[in-house]
Amino acid sequence: MNTVNMNKMSWVAYCAQIKTTNPPVFLPVGALEQHGPHLPLGTDALLSAAVAASTAELINGIVAPALSYGYKSQPKCGGGQHFCGTTSVDAQTLIGLVRDTVREFARHGVEKLVIVNGHFENQWFITEGIDLAMRDIQPGAKLRVMRLEYWDFLTETTLHSVFPNGFPGYALEHAAIIETSLMLHYHPDLVRLDLIPDDGPADFPPYDIYPANPDWVPPSGVLSSALGADAEKGEIMAKELAARIAQAVVAEFNQT
Amino acid sequence: MNTVNMNKMSWVAYCAQIKTTNPPVFLPVGALEQHGPHLPLGTDALLSAAVAASTAELINGIVAPALSYGYKSQPKCGGGQHFCGTTSVDAQTLIGLVRDTVREFARHGVEKLVIVNGHFENQWFITEGIDLAMRDIQPGAKLRVMRLEYWDFLTETTLHSVFPNGFPGYALEHAAIIETSLMLHYHPDLVRLDLIPDDGPADFPPYDIYPANPDWVPPSGVLSSALGADAEKGEIMAKELAARIAQAVVAEFNQT
Amino acid sequence: MNTVNMNKMSWVAYCAQIKTTNPPVFLPVGALEQHGPHLPLGTDALLSAAVAASTAELINGIVAPALSYGYKSQPKCGGGQHFCGTTSVDAQTLIGLVRDTVREFARHGVEKLVIVNGHFENQWFITEGIDLAMRDIQPGAKLRVMRLEYWDFLTETTLHSVFPNGFPGYALEHAAIIETSLMLHYHPDLVRLDLIPDDGPADFPPYDIYPANPDWVPPSGVLSSALGADAEKGEIMAKELAARIAQAVVAEFNQT
Amino acid sequence: MNTVNMNKMSWVAYCAQIKTTNPPVFLPVGALEQHGPHLPLGTDALLSAAVAASTAELINGIVAPALSYGYKSQPKCGGGQHFCGTTSVDAQTLIGLVRDTVREFARHGVEKLVIVNGHFENQWFITEGIDLAMRDIQPGAKLRVMRLEYWDFLTETTLHSVFPNGFPGYALEHAAIIETSLMLHYHPDLVRLDLIPDDGPADFPPYDIYPANPDWVPPSGVLSSALGADAEKGEIMAKELAARIAQAVVAEFNQT
Amino acid sequence: MNTVNMNKMSWVAYCAQIKTTNPPVFLPVGALEQHGPHLPLGTDALLSAAVAASTAELINGIVAPALSYGYKSQPKCGGGQHFCGTTSVDAQTLIGLVRDTVREFARHGVEKLVIVNGHFENQWFITEGIDLAMRDIQPGAKLRVMRLEYWDFLTETTLHSVFPNGFPGYALEHAAIIETSLMLHYHPDLVRLDLIPDDGPADFPPYDIYPANPDWVPPSGVLSSALGADAEKGEIMAKELAARIAQAVVAEFNQT
Amino acid sequence: MNTVNMNKMSWVAYCAQIKTTNPPVFLPVGALEQHGPHLPLGTDALLSAAVAASTAELINGIVAPALSYGYKSQPKCGGGQHFCGTTSVDAQTLIGLVRDTVREFARHGVEKLVIVNGHFENQWFITEGIDLAMRDIQPGAKLRVMRLEYWDFLTETTLHSVFPNGFPGYALEHAAIIETSLMLHYHPDLVRLDLIPDDGPADFPPYDIYPANPDWVPPSGVLSSALGADAEKGEIMAKELAARIAQAVVAEFNQT
Repeated sequence: MNTVNMNKMSWVAYCAQIKTTNPPVFLPVGALEQHGPHLPLGTDALLSAAVAASTAELINGIVAPALSYGYKSQPKCGGGQHFCGTTSVDAQTLIGLVRDTVREFARHGVEKLVIVNGHFENQWFITEGIDLAMRDIQPGAKLRVMRLEYWDFLTETTLHSVFPNGFPGYALEHAAIIETSLMLHYHPDLVRLDLIPDDGPADFPPYDIYPANPDWVPPSGVLSSALGADAEKGEIMAKELAARIAQAVVAEFNQT
Repeated sequence: MNTVNMNKMSWVAYCAQIKTTNPPVFLPVGALEQHGPHLPLGTDALLSAAVAASTAELINGIVAPALSYGYKSQPKCGGGQHFCGTTSVDAQTLIGLVRDTVREFARHGVEKLVIVNGHFENQWFITEGIDLAMRDIQPGAKLRVMRLEYWDFLTETTLHSVFPNGFPGYALEHAAIIETSLMLHYHPDLVRLDLIPDDGPADFPPYDIYPANPDWVPPSGVLSSALGADAEKGEIMAKELAARIAQAVVAEFNQT
Repeated sequence: MNTVNMNKMSWVAYCAQIKTTNPPVFLPVGALEQHGPHLPLGTDALLSAAVAASTAELINGIVAPALSYGYKSQPKCGGGQHFCGTTSVDAQTLIGLVRDTVREFARHGVEKLVIVNGHFENQWFITEGIDLAMRDIQPGAKLRVMRLEYWDFLTETTLHSVFPNGFPGYALEHAAIIETSLMLHYHPDLVRLDLIPDDGPADFPPYDIYPANPDWVPPSGVLSSALGADAEKGEIMAKELAARIAQAVVAEFNQT
Repeated sequence: MNTVNMNKMSWVAYCAQIKTTNPPVFLPVGALEQHGPHLPLGTDALLSAAVAASTAELINGIVAPALSYGYKSQPKCGGGQHFCGTTSVDAQTLIGLVRDTVREFARHGVEKLVIVNGHFENQWFITEGIDLAMRDIQPGAKLRVMRLEYWDFLTETTLHSVFPNGFPGYALEHAAIIETSLMLHYHPDLVRLDLIPDDGPADFPPYDIYPANPDWVPPSGVLSSALGADAEKGEIMAKELAARIAQAVVAEFNQT
Repeated sequence: MNTVNMNKMSWVAYCAQIKTTNPPVFLPVGALEQHGPHLPLGTDALLSAAVAASTAELINGIVAPALSYGYKSQPKCGGGQHFCGTTSVDAQTLIGLVRDTVREFARHGVEKLVIVNGHFENQWFITEGIDLAMRDIQPGAKLRVMRLEYWDFLTETTLHSVFPNGFPGYALEHAAIIETSLMLHYHPDLVRLDLIPDDGPADFPPYDIYPANPDWVPPSGVLSSALGADAEKGEIMAKELAARIAQAVVAEFNQT
Repeated sequence: MNTVNMNKMSWVAYCAQIKTTNPPVFLPVGALEQHGPHLPLGTDALLSAAVAASTAELINGIVAPALSYGYKSQPKCGGGQHFCGTTSVDAQTLIGLVRDTVREFARHGVEKLVIVNGHFENQWFITEGIDLAMRDIQPGAKLRVMRLEYWDFLTETTLHSVFPNGFPGYALEHAAIIETSLMLHYHPDLVRLDLIPDDGPADFPPYDIYPANPDWVPPSGVLSSALGADAEKGEIMAKELAARIAQAVVAEFNQT
């Protein structure tokens, strides 16, 4: 059987590992959301799971099944809810999913839980889910939870090399160079390089409007061009992410 | 790209298929739950997704990402919540997940949604989720939803051949001959035949007790023995399930 | 005053009994649901309350007021929600009712609570209600809860004698021979034998469809014929149910 | 069968009546709450159901099963939650019960729904339940809902005759003269006149305190003495209530 | 900085006061609701905050920011939800607001919390919020909560002098003499005496109807005339309220 | 009376303005949260309300009462929930508050609603509240909602002049130069310049940890120093914010 993916381990094997090596458990959280014509709908879950797995391999961690459906897509970071294919859940649902699973990991005896978020819109609802789970957990439990958006572990140096003309900021990095490069590294068969649109970077006003105005977003759903993405950049970033997240996990959880 | 798994399709490809061929969309629902020492924790999600994919291939359907976490495990059908590794969600969370995703598929223009349940405990919460989504959906939407537990599509004939000494009933078929055989067919590398316990069939009283009594369930978590499971039985069942579900989908959704 | 029905006892009398004899408290759960032209809408609550009272009398138990409204009727076991008269509640409401009342019985000092379910569709929502109440209850409380569907206490022998031509299974036993016989025993004035329809057993496909298809269900609402029901059969079953449930309650709650 | 109590009617009979005579449907709401040593725990549900039935008989109405569990008892009007036997539900649960049942009556085609409240603490949560149901109901539905606390239909004249020394106000009328007299009229076998305590009227400060202070309430749970209650007063009040509520129902629902 | 209004104190100053003088903290709860043509929409929040501040000044208390939005306006006490300008929240929202803030004050170490309600419709939802917070609070916390409707602290003597022709009861005191006089005392610039309508007292039947019937309420929204209100009456009442609430707070919280 | 603050207007005046001039309505959302020893707990609500009022004055808008309690404070942007004085609400509560109030403004006939957020942690829960309200609103309503964090309207030019040594980013701008300067402009009496700590900028890792680690945050609660704040900078920013938000409101809402 598998020793990294929790869903492919027997409960006996999982349990033995929890009891003996006190490993970090990674919970990837993604989305099913349009990522332009060149990336698949599942990109956020695929990448957060891949980053989690790469990290787990470095430090003998375990990866739980990804939460595949994320919070509702917003125009400025994911294109918005008017796209066919984007399949999102309400705040209460995502909060509940995180709350319940965190509570369960605490019951298992997990002490180091790392939630790896790959969908920008999820962040605050994951935070609420963790907070509510912390209220639920019995005083005896030793669980602590780290929550991270994986891209925050890229160094300035790497961003400079990936974006020689300057990094436009994570806000527009939806289906763009970072995600496309990482997908070319992890799932090259799921990328259609020939279909990358050359949409100039989207330009948003300093507010949001509801109902959303679809005209704010290019019809392709891409907020800044993915031209320039390649597998090599993907590999560099993937290795840096795994190494730096692993380092943070070790440092944070071993310090207590 | 992939033409069956929604999370591996671009939104453009998915959308084109929805608009042109009006395909059935399959939503598998599973669990992360102990399945004895010989099957992995993700068995229910893996099998419901596999059955959905086999069916979808026969009739050009699309398979959405499985809901990987299911309702709380009960002693009589899944061993119970005292097992380490079993990772479950509350009723409200599962209801919300189904409600939200059904509502989204309606927005996409999906008219034929098939929810393939692989975890016995999920059934009634899926039902509530669908019912609430039906209230939410705009009058114009044409979505109809089929919900099924895949094992209900096995014929008496097949059950007789799989259980020559008599079928003990689905209640005890947790991590037993049906699931083990199907896993040997679909995911042979995730089955440890050498670890199958020979626990006699569990014998439960005609009631449930809370808090659950762990003594009701064999320590292995297996409710009736999986001895006798083999890949050939798995293949026979897998083919029958896909064929008969496909037939039902076509018949039900084309009749209107 | 009354010594069995809690709602007819004063709090002083109830409290004294709880403190001195530690009696089992029975909470019947029913529904307000079509039961064909020959049985009243309240059948499920009337029968679960009657079974609870018969059992309580045997072992000096107390019967709390029945929950009179149940979860939404499903075509395959109750005819479905399209019937006028069927009056159902959402999952959240039933879960809340059970959660709150269980928590209150724990506060009273009740240690043996028996939830007697008489409506098939309620089972899983009662289960969730109990589970959530168990989370709420203070560590000191000694409450344990037994949940049962009363018909599961009928013996094979009795089923054979009630159904000499073979028992069609509980799935179709809605407003049919078991319920009609029990009503003839407990509430003969509420049964209209002259109106029993002779609908052949309903034949359902191995899936459910939403919105429900009313054509699946006979217009009478009866899933298999009640012809053959009589008060004598009702009496035999009523006595067996009370005796066997009483025995289980004593055995389960005294063993600790 | 019965022609007043919905739970004792078949769906066919109920439905025929709804379609042909457009009758008012009464939904009694009570509580399971201490009512001193002389009245039973179910007093509020018993009385609201009795008043509803008396009224329904005058104008060919139908009485739905009472909601038997009410909102949490407060010291100033019901003695408080520290009494053993008092069994209450949270706000959300009561709101949900009312919301769901109102929505169902609208589906049946009921146009005149009268909610007869017999437990002071319920009023505002019933109001919220009705309001939310009104949001849910389809535009076509003609349902209107009347909500009333039955005691508000007593005339000044009657109050003067029942309380020759002056009416102390409804606030203290818990398990006191009005309720005891009505119970002596409707359910004389459930009243223990010999156990009526002679607690002077409780004297409360103009605020509430949480957690409640049990010392505010006489240990008997009676807020003002029931001495002076008799069946004759009960009959006078019962007749007046039925007559005046019937008159209001006819006037209000026929005016549109 | 300010020493009464919490939102104008630094956390350092607030915290020091909590730790050293164990002061009562007042949480005013109001509404944004029509109050006739002569009083502002925010009357209930302005008055509950003013009464709280006057009281706090007498006993070195602290006043938290008012909850400015209240429960839905009812015809008989606030005119109803059909008025433009009335801006209300659902039960669940108000319950949540109270629950969350009470829990937070307990975390701060507050032991004496006084919720000053100025909107009749809020009472029961505040009660539920407090009750749920009490369940949440850790065993160690010493918080107790007093809830009051400020008008209940007016003495009979004062009511007689304010209403020489007899007090019509609080039910009709919406935008009438008490509120108008208090506003003339606290916020004279926000009162338009010239616009006071002379609507006779509204006369309501002993029930409520849903959807509400706007004809029950004078078009001005005033339930009984405010003619006769003046600042002097306001001052008398304001002083009495502050003095008597202060006295109750001291007596109640120091007695333990 | 007042013509800008809704809570100081009568319903008649408010309503007349809505019907005749179709004004934008501003809903400020703040928090009650530690802001160092030099700023008051209510800073976020005071500033969002002040910015809203300044903007409303420019374009004849109306300002609704601020939501004074915000979502739970996070270490990286508000210091965290371990501070005494910080008084926060759960996600569900804030979502409900926004949902309910938006729905009410739609009922009033408001077409231009501007939610001015002054507390970083609120953003996503406001978004969910608006989204849910949009589902609730009747098809006929013309309401559109703009949501903004006010600081996003500062120009690069202004940031350069306020931060001659470089802008450290909004993440650390809690109780720092921008907020302190704006408070010195709008509420100088609530600022204690003498108490500004000289804490160097906080340095956070690229993840969050739960339970939060108080050591991450300076004991003062200030994330970067407010030294250099002055009223003149405050005035420049206040004017720019009002002017630019007003411009955006006019442009966005008049374009349709």
